[in-house]
Amino acid sequence: MEINEFRRAGHELVDWMADYLKDVERLPITPDVKPGDIRRSLPASPPQAAEPTEQLMNDFGRLILPGMTHWGHPGFFAYFPSNASPPSMLAEMLTAALGAQCMSWQTSPAATELEQVTMEWLRQMLALPEGFTGVIQDTSSTATLVALLTARERATGFAAAIHGLQGVERRLTVYTSRERHSSVDKAVRLAGYGIESLRLIDLDDAYAMRPDALEQAIQADIAQGLVPAVVVATTGTTGSTAIDPLRPIGEICRRHGIWLHVDASYAGTAAILPEKRWILDGVEFADSFVFNPHKWMLVNFDCSAYFVKDVDALLRTFSASPEYLRTAHDAEVANFRDWGIQLGRRFRALKLWWVIKSYGVEGLQAIIRRNCEWAESVAGWVRADSRFELMAPVPLGLVCFRLRAREGEDEAEVNERNRELLARVNATRQVYLSHTALDGRYTIRMAIGARATEFRHVREAWALIAATVE
Amino acid sequence: MEINEFRRAGHELVDWMADYLKDVERLPITPDVKPGDIRRSLPASPPQAAEPTEQLMNDFGRLILPGMTHWGHPGFFAYFPSNASPPSMLAEMLTAALGAQCMSWQTSPAATELEQVTMEWLRQMLALPEGFTGVIQDTSSTATLVALLTARERATGFAAAIHGLQGVERRLTVYTSRERHSSVDKAVRLAGYGIESLRLIDLDDAYAMRPDALEQAIQADIAQGLVPAVVVATTGTTGSTAIDPLRPIGEICRRHGIWLHVDASYAGTAAILPEKRWILDGVEFADSFVFNPHKWMLVNFDCSAYFVKDVDALLRTFSASPEYLRTAHDAEVANFRDWGIQLGRRFRALKLWWVIKSYGVEGLQAIIRRNCEWAESVAGWVRADSRFELMAPVPLGLVCFRLRAREGEDEAEVNERNRELLARVNATRQVYLSHTALDGRYTIRMAIGARATEFRHVREAWALIAATVE
Repeated sequence: MEINEFRRAGHELVDWMADYLKDVERLPITPDVKPGDIRRSLPASPPQAAEPTEQLMNDFGRLILPGMTHWGHPGFFAYFPSNASPPSMLAEMLTAALGAQCMSWQTSPAATELEQVTMEWLRQMLALPEGFTGVIQDTSSTATLVALLTARERATGFAAAIHGLQGVERRLTVYTSRERHSSVDKAVRLAGYGIESLRLIDLDDAYAMRPDALEQAIQADIAQGLVPAVVVATTGTTGSTAIDPLRPIGEICRRHGIWLHVDASYAGTAAILPEKRWILDGVEFADSFVFNPHKWMLVNFDCSAYFVKDVDALLRTFSASPEYLRTAHDAEVANFRDWGIQLGRRFRALKLWWVIKSYGVEGLQAIIRRNCEWAESVAGWVRADSRFELMAPVPLGLVCFRLRAREGEDEAEVNERNRELLARVNATRQVYLSHTALDGRYTIRMAIGARATEFRHVREAWALIAATVE
Repeated sequence: MEINEFRRAGHELVDWMADYLKDVERLPITPDVKPGDIRRSLPASPPQAAEPTEQLMNDFGRLILPGMTHWGHPGFFAYFPSNASPPSMLAEMLTAALGAQCMSWQTSPAATELEQVTMEWLRQMLALPEGFTGVIQDTSSTATLVALLTARERATGFAAAIHGLQGVERRLTVYTSRERHSSVDKAVRLAGYGIESLRLIDLDDAYAMRPDALEQAIQADIAQGLVPAVVVATTGTTGSTAIDPLRPIGEICRRHGIWLHVDASYAGTAAILPEKRWILDGVEFADSFVFNPHKWMLVNFDCSAYFVKDVDALLRTFSASPEYLRTAHDAEVANFRDWGIQLGRRFRALKLWWVIKSYGVEGLQAIIRRNCEWAESVAGWVRADSRFELMAPVPLGLVCFRLRAREGEDEAEVNERNRELLARVNATRQVYLSHTALDGRYTIRMAIGARATEFRHVREAWALIAATVE
């Protein structure tokens, strides 16, 4: 591809991107396709000859775009937001053009140092205590696995990596709440603890971990000769944004010498608001902490901010320095390849830097504050409509609700009626909401925080839901 | 940021990108910075107020760009190529704009199905046997960890994930060559095998794994009551692109029921050339196979192509299906969150599709073929210059060479003289080469395959090297 052709196509694409941002609201938010539809529309074998960019653009618009769910649609209230903001898109363009490998300081000095600087900025923005050092991971799933691996090594005196877990006699155990994210279970399996070693701690009425139940479980395991290795507390569960109480949990961990990992994937962003910092009260007890600027903080996926206290433990678990990667500067610099699973790394700090500068801390605060206020409004509407009930507290941007059980209706029937309501609402393709189960009860989740969402979209979405009840 | 401001800034950035592609050749390939220089030039705290895009562009050009190593520079011969091609940059722009989450079919149907289609295209392009199913991972490090975890589960009858590795009695062992990539050692440690369980198999004269030595090591372990779980063979080692002989290795694995993982991170791309397919002879014995389109195949990082035969084993190891991720289509579709470590996933298939269509298979073949021919030319120049010696065969795009020992010079002295030569060549900042150690001998690596490199750059680089010898 000639540079002039790239320039021409690039300008065309920028116009497409800007038009998409402008018009996405008018697209159906989810596609009307069945499994296999798109696959069948594409050739079974790759083209032998080059195709002109014009044809690629056409094929994209004709074959791919109609099969996409539009995560940037203002009616997107499903899962948690995964925000691609215009400033972040600009930074992604530069990252793509540079194509820099950020595995070592040597291979991209500015990328390494910008990552150090922006992670320190984030630490300050969330008011995390000094002593936390940050590194960008791709996702919280990875960060949680990284935490569980580091905790495994610390709990075994770094023997597991050498002798293997099979060479470690006393069994390790892991603790988390019944409402933890699925990535905790996955990390427990992958890190070799085994799912039988995972203790699911009971919840209080707000779906948060009960510290007394945690203490009990730990005591019981210690009495059995087991070694409690790590507790994963959640700040803002995926189900209902329940806030595990970090202070009492942290005190328990400190007392028993247990690694405390805090998963604040979605909720962490809210801690840039002084009035929401209570959600992290006690975070100074944590050994590791993760939140995703790529969710609510307007940074394009992927960008997961992982903070640790004991950098040495992290490096002892993850470093690898073969001859072909050694450089003269290794003693003085951070080589982020040694801070996680992957060797190769994209220049992700650039979009983080770009977004923080482009909005400013105050700009980001205004957006998050507004989203939380809108969620409170929805919670008020739910409370005011006797057909509905709130299913959980609304500390942040997520509202959990359902249709109340009617006289004589059993749990299965009310679940089914809510499932049908959600299906009908989503079938309009004007909004997209998702669901969870809280205590076995089917619950509709409305997560407010998509970048393009304005208050009118929230109002219209609720009006649609309320009007869809049969 | 208003859409019009985004449009204006986007156009400006496209011009910057095109100019960068045009002018990168004139920039110093590596930056003249010391550890800490860039960090000190940036504010210690984040800006409270928003900054205009103009200022961001200025700061990028003034503070960040001068600190970058230019991986797209035509004089880039270090490590392995990590190619950001113009068509791939265009696709990255669309991926950034869509901001789609590709964890489940439901969350982006077209992304999931395009991933299935393009991975099948790659299978055909490399002439991998039918029966291999593909999924995009971020890096080979991750793919190798995924392979070692799946192999661990298969070897323990999927008991490790349930009872923990500590609940599995018979010790597992892993085999790879002395020239394997560092990510194998890392995965052995992370997956809980323990580095003591890793057997480093001896090499033949071309730095490839000796199957007889492998068989011996396996027999010895079996005699000890250990359970050989996985062999990692390398097609194209990082040190010297040595090609482990897959057929005899695969026959050994088949005989003993051992998982065979093939790491073809760099070299795999060469298998799109019929005349290079011998490098994968015997790949039908593999259980898993990985290569990186993001290295030599012009797809922007990250895009690692991971193929497996036993999809069920992969899913049993990695699937996680909590209520909030369940959808009506789960039985009929691929949910790629269950095919690896991460839950969240970028729309990476788009750039793969875009690159294959934009170059066509023939276009990609022409580029790879040319790179291999240029490497042969360099090998010829090395042979023709009595001051130098080739250190390894040149089957692909990498040339390993060094200055010969002079009369009476010992190994340490000749190593030092080569280290100095490489330092002086790289200090010109016109080219960038890296090094390795082969049998303890310091070896200069010249990897040909950066997208912008033309034959004249190869000739000039060699002339520079030859003229720099003291």
